Amino acid sequence: MNDADDDILATTHAAPGEVGLVEPRDWVTTEPFTFVNGQTIGGFTLRYETYGRPNAAKDNAILVCHALSGDHHCAGIHSLNDRKPGWWNNLIGPGKALDTNKYFVLCANVIGGCQGSSGPSSFNPATGKPFGITFPVVTIRDMVRAQKIWLDALGIPSLYAVIGGSMGGMQALQWAIEFPGYARRIIAMATTWRESAQAIAFNEVGRQAIMQDPDWKHGDYAAGAGPRVGLAIARMMAHITYLSDASMDRKFGRRQVAERLKAPPAATKPAPAQADCHLISDKPAAAAGGAATFDVQFEVESYLRYQGKSFINRFDANSYLYITRAIDQFDLGHAHGSLEQAFRSVESDTLVVGFTSDWLFPPEQNRSIVEALLRAGKPASYAELTTDLGHDSFLLESPQLYDLVRGFLARPCRVAVKSS
Amino acid sequence: MNDADDDILATTHAAPGEVGLVEPRDWVTTEPFTFVNGQTIGGFTLRYETYGRPNAAKDNAILVCHALSGDHHCAGIHSLNDRKPGWWNNLIGPGKALDTNKYFVLCANVIGGCQGSSGPSSFNPATGKPFGITFPVVTIRDMVRAQKIWLDALGIPSLYAVIGGSMGGMQALQWAIEFPGYARRIIAMATTWRESAQAIAFNEVGRQAIMQDPDWKHGDYAAGAGPRVGLAIARMMAHITYLSDASMDRKFGRRQVAERLKAPPAATKPAPAQADCHLISDKPAAAAGGAATFDVQFEVESYLRYQGKSFINRFDANSYLYITRAIDQFDLGHAHGSLEQAFRSVESDTLVVGFTSDWLFPPEQNRSIVEALLRAGKPASYAELTTDLGHDSFLLESPQLYDLVRGFLARPCRVAVKSS
Repeated sequence: MNDADDDILATTHAAPGEVGLVEPRDWVTTEPFTFVNGQTIGGFTLRYETYGRPNAAKDNAILVCHALSGDHHCAGIHSLNDRKPGWWNNLIGPGKALDTNKYFVLCANVIGGCQGSSGPSSFNPATGKPFGITFPVVTIRDMVRAQKIWLDALGIPSLYAVIGGSMGGMQALQWAIEFPGYARRIIAMATTWRESAQAIAFNEVGRQAIMQDPDWKHGDYAAGAGPRVGLAIARMMAHITYLSDASMDRKFGRRQVAERLKAPPAATKPAPAQADCHLISDKPAAAAGGAATFDVQFEVESYLRYQGKSFINRFDANSYLYITRAIDQFDLGHAHGSLEQAFRSVESDTLVVGFTSDWLFPPEQNRSIVEALLRAGKPASYAELTTDLGHDSFLLESPQLYDLVRGFLARPCRVAVKSS
Repeated sequence: MNDADDDILATTHAAPGEVGLVEPRDWVTTEPFTFVNGQTIGGFTLRYETYGRPNAAKDNAILVCHALSGDHHCAGIHSLNDRKPGWWNNLIGPGKALDTNKYFVLCANVIGGCQGSSGPSSFNPATGKPFGITFPVVTIRDMVRAQKIWLDALGIPSLYAVIGGSMGGMQALQWAIEFPGYARRIIAMATTWRESAQAIAFNEVGRQAIMQDPDWKHGDYAAGAGPRVGLAIARMMAHITYLSDASMDRKFGRRQVAERLKAPPAATKPAPAQADCHLISDKPAAAAGGAATFDVQFEVESYLRYQGKSFINRFDANSYLYITRAIDQFDLGHAHGSLEQAFRSVESDTLVVGFTSDWLFPPEQNRSIVEALLRAGKPASYAELTTDLGHDSFLLESPQLYDLVRGFLARPCRVAVKSS
């Protein structure tokens, strides 16, 4: 497990400009891990991917941190038939902003997650059943601490940079505080140092949708089973908060499903047409004979149902509870007295990027991170990108964002380099 | 049923400045009513209340139209122990903006509703069971047309004004178009002539939460039963859209429930403290022995759970489906070719009020109503109130709003008076 050179085997078969075929790997430790809340598990697994190669000095590693519904698969494809590359494939690859010709890029599924890393859906060796909600409470700090153990095991002495958006940005900020100087550059985008009451409220409704689903069973459901309806509802609602009023109006407007099917093919990728729009149960929504139908009518409804349906096939409901709770509890100011105080120990150069139409983690919340870093006497830059694509802007095609990231990575670090 | 003078009996026992004790009444017709979609029911009931008295000329009637979760009880109290007056009690009463010393104020629960008017929870005489989703599809036009039949029966020859916020504003605009000149003044606030994709999306998630609840049973549940969990989830989510990020931060911030219980009593009315926060099922959310708890932690969660819980005790889930669909389908531009065209026949003077922090039906949508009226050559005024209380601003204490309403009602109408 500690053969770092084997574990960080670089990927091959890359088409020009693309990472190409990649394979996820599991890193497993049997060393006990104690969570921030004091509970201990007897070891854990992180599933991860890497792109590019470490250089001789091992000082070119960039850690990518994923958001709530993301995972370790942030670039490349898993098979030649794979039509959907990793979630940040537009940013990562040969010659891209995270240039895999220069950098050794790593990304792990967070602890508490459900894509291969240890979390509530993992089997508890003590019971032979999934942990469910007996898994310890997970915080953003735990995610970072678990990743540090993994990176140490891989023999990564320091990070050239850590980068993430949304919850990935929270992890990036936590890296700066938890392990001062280990990551020399921090790039956090579309994020916050603490959520607003509104953002907590949306997460809470999602959790209630899951926990009130009779299939939740207090978290004690069999592998593959679980509160699919509640999870789909949570996802549909959350998805609205990732977009913007303007982008939804442009993408869907008030078009009705029947209208679109009659209309000439759109130039842009249409929302998936669903004959079976009853995403979760696939039962018809209307009874027979003159009853009102509440079946899908507007394109935006079809799109959301599709989002809900695809999410339940890839995400564990208990993980959704754990990770949204970790996000809600993240509060750098509360944990350290003030945000400025939290940043006193930072030994990184920081770039924060906000997006004007992000109403989940609005620009002000991003800007205030940099203001506190500057007050704490740390090098930090803030950029605000004008976009109408909402919170998800950080995931979408954006040459301006790529240039910002590329430029920040290329320029000399404004703090003393510690370990390389 | 047609004894108008008896039906419009004014209320008594009013304390100074207050409407005081009021009693709802049922108006029932056995004349068939054909909905816009062509379906017919063999008569219907509207439950309503009135405040103030009609004058001799019967030209002082003001119709109040309620929003999605509102009803006919918009002012006064139902008993001397009643601690919660009607939902627009701050606007309606002797000497208030809707001055019951001058005006005869009426409000009816909409057709399709569940507070006494005919709707999906009404008994279908043909089956002896609630209509459920065999009730005809309801539109905003149907709500207005049903109210016109009722007002005609009461012997109200014209309306001095019609006033409403949110869906009530949609009805007010529909009155102007459907029955030109019947209402001489239109006051619509926090409303829209057609919802955005985002607003449809939120309603759709609410409908899905209801319809995917196993207790929905395709709308065929017994009276008093139904998808309580789904309805509570829908309400919790919708409630977030009625507030604003700023108002939620001021009201709740990131305060935790335990913290507030320790803190000195707040000057403002606190969110209800809930020991039993498992609003719907009252089952504990956490299993025993070291399990993670997803019980209420933040005050905003407690507040939302309370909102969900209280809603399911007063609202019918099928009505929620019908009324949100009516709201989503409301599109004055689509129905008439353009909004300007829709307004060509208007013979009313119109005031529209938008609220800066309303992100459900934003100021621009309110402003565009007045712009279209002006393009159509109609008298219309727009006012925008600066507030950080979100969509619900129209319901809340606002001297500026009262002054706007009072002034608009007091000034001469800018259109030729038709019938008085």
